[in-house]
Amino acid sequence: MKLLITGGAGFVGARLARTLLARGTLAGAKIERLVLADQFAPPADLMADARVGARTGALLSQAAALADEGFDGVFHLASAVSGECEADFELGLRSNLDTTRALLDGFRLKSTTRGQVPRLVFSSSVAVFGPDPAVPLPPIVSDTTLPAPQTSYGTQKLICEHLVADYTRKGYIDGRSARLMTVTVRPGKPNAAASSFFSGIIREPLAGVESVCPVSPEVSHPVSSPGRTVDALIAVYEASREAFNGRTAMNLPALNVKVSEMLEALEQVAGKAVRARVRFERDERIAGIVANWPTGATAGRAAALGLKPDTSFADIVRQYIADCERGPDAAQALKGLTR
Amino acid sequence: MKLLITGGAGFVGARLARTLLARGTLAGAKIERLVLADQFAPPADLMADARVGARTGALLSQAAALADEGFDGVFHLASAVSGECEADFELGLRSNLDTTRALLDGFRLKSTTRGQVPRLVFSSSVAVFGPDPAVPLPPIVSDTTLPAPQTSYGTQKLICEHLVADYTRKGYIDGRSARLMTVTVRPGKPNAAASSFFSGIIREPLAGVESVCPVSPEVSHPVSSPGRTVDALIAVYEASREAFNGRTAMNLPALNVKVSEMLEALEQVAGKAVRARVRFERDERIAGIVANWPTGATAGRAAALGLKPDTSFADIVRQYIADCERGPDAAQALKGLTR
Repeated sequence: MKLLITGGAGFVGARLARTLLARGTLAGAKIERLVLADQFAPPADLMADARVGARTGALLSQAAALADEGFDGVFHLASAVSGECEADFELGLRSNLDTTRALLDGFRLKSTTRGQVPRLVFSSSVAVFGPDPAVPLPPIVSDTTLPAPQTSYGTQKLICEHLVADYTRKGYIDGRSARLMTVTVRPGKPNAAASSFFSGIIREPLAGVESVCPVSPEVSHPVSSPGRTVDALIAVYEASREAFNGRTAMNLPALNVKVSEMLEALEQVAGKAVRARVRFERDERIAGIVANWPTGATAGRAAALGLKPDTSFADIVRQYIADCERGPDAAQALKGLTR
Repeated sequence: MKLLITGGAGFVGARLARTLLARGTLAGAKIERLVLADQFAPPADLMADARVGARTGALLSQAAALADEGFDGVFHLASAVSGECEADFELGLRSNLDTTRALLDGFRLKSTTRGQVPRLVFSSSVAVFGPDPAVPLPPIVSDTTLPAPQTSYGTQKLICEHLVADYTRKGYIDGRSARLMTVTVRPGKPNAAASSFFSGIIREPLAGVESVCPVSPEVSHPVSSPGRTVDALIAVYEASREAFNGRTAMNLPALNVKVSEMLEALEQVAGKAVRARVRFERDERIAGIVANWPTGATAGRAAALGLKPDTSFADIVRQYIADCERGPDAAQALKGLTR
């Protein structure tokens, strides 16, 4: 089978690619070709695999050609992040809405001219939820909570969910929208996502660097480890239409955790000295965005697919440390860790 | 003030235009100019008013120029109807989604370059609601029911609701989305809307013509008279931001009525002979679409604005007859009525 991952050079996309290549199969079929489309070139380890191809450049201008390549399956992960979309409205519309539309229209053309209907997993986000005066946000959102997004990013994700549902209803794709929780711990540098600190307050202290938490320790949030997130995307792909149960978007499993609990877990796994590198300094812009996010999520439909949240935040910290230890930059990434 | 009505030559748009011109003011300001944009030319009586201008042609190609004209207020009613959108997927995307996006981007440009932020009422639809395996449809939908549209028309309306909300949040427009119930009784010929028969089974018998009802008499549906619908659109325009209460879309008031009750009302107002011109002949395509619609709606937020549904379907039939009697085609339209 021939697969496409958009955003395939990104953190989640590259991890998904590695997992798929290691498995060798998806939904019972052998993976013969894996195309990674991204504005950046994929990591070298992925490019070293003979099955991997790269399509590097703006996705919007590549969408029609990509769709025409004829994929059996697609993971559509490419996206501008929340902070970018708030700062640059047109960037968000172009990268998130127009690009998804162009891809879907490409697949529609392929399905109506060649009868090829790709299975497509769309990575939506817990950011579709937010409070509106007419629609109070429950503290814990579920699959059936009414979305009222309070960011352009959340709005664009929600709109794409509905496009995916309607193109699926019409038979142009076999689409499934899965709402990712905040993925933590992300490696590398902070990004423009307002949720970036949920990784930073773990990653930076482990690297021996001070980290500033811009919100109160009492802030609670639904998170998921990279490993669980990738496993969930694969499970959503492999689910039958009946098991996916409808065309509305599905929440992926979340560990609902307070910032204070995240830091306790960090101390438990890595020690007091590491924990002490985090200090609190409120950032009104970030805190304002985060205040509009749910404090937790349930994922009943994902549970029916057998998907479970991470068991504890300490496990998430351990997963991050183990990932670093396997990588080339272990010394730098775990510089602050003395055991 | 300078107003724009898109779809201004249509049934609801023209009635709204007549009502606004007769009032002379909107939200306390004098109406100096009323532009009707539509693919068809407006009715002659509207064009005879010195305040009225027409912009006739495809709205998508006119959107940028229209936005640049600089309106204080906009009623965005133009839309392809449900049956058309199911038959021609691209038409629906273009007429409903792309056109709304182009208008909103035009207003965004105007607001960022000139500081002009128009108030905009978007006519969404009860068609945003539908059943999904994961999201059972309550028989009576409310302002907080989770939309799961089962048509492209409903999907496009829902997407536009969210665009209007986000452009409003960003301050580019002062937008309010109002979900119209099925407007009945419409004059003229049947249209391609799957709901067309809700007018046909009243209009045709009154004109002395046989009418076929494609669904069971037990089918219940939320309807609104043209008069109440236009009054509600004006009230939504005139509401303060606080009174509108949030940015999510608002249901307009509905009279929830069964087909059998509609026909009883017809008999009550117009007599047995008129009622006898309706026969039942199931149309699987229409019945299938209608089966995915809610059987009724509540409108709590609209009620808080002082808006009420029609008091009875007999009143709706009487409104239609009175409208016909005032019009030029009364003899033809009421040919079947002998009193």
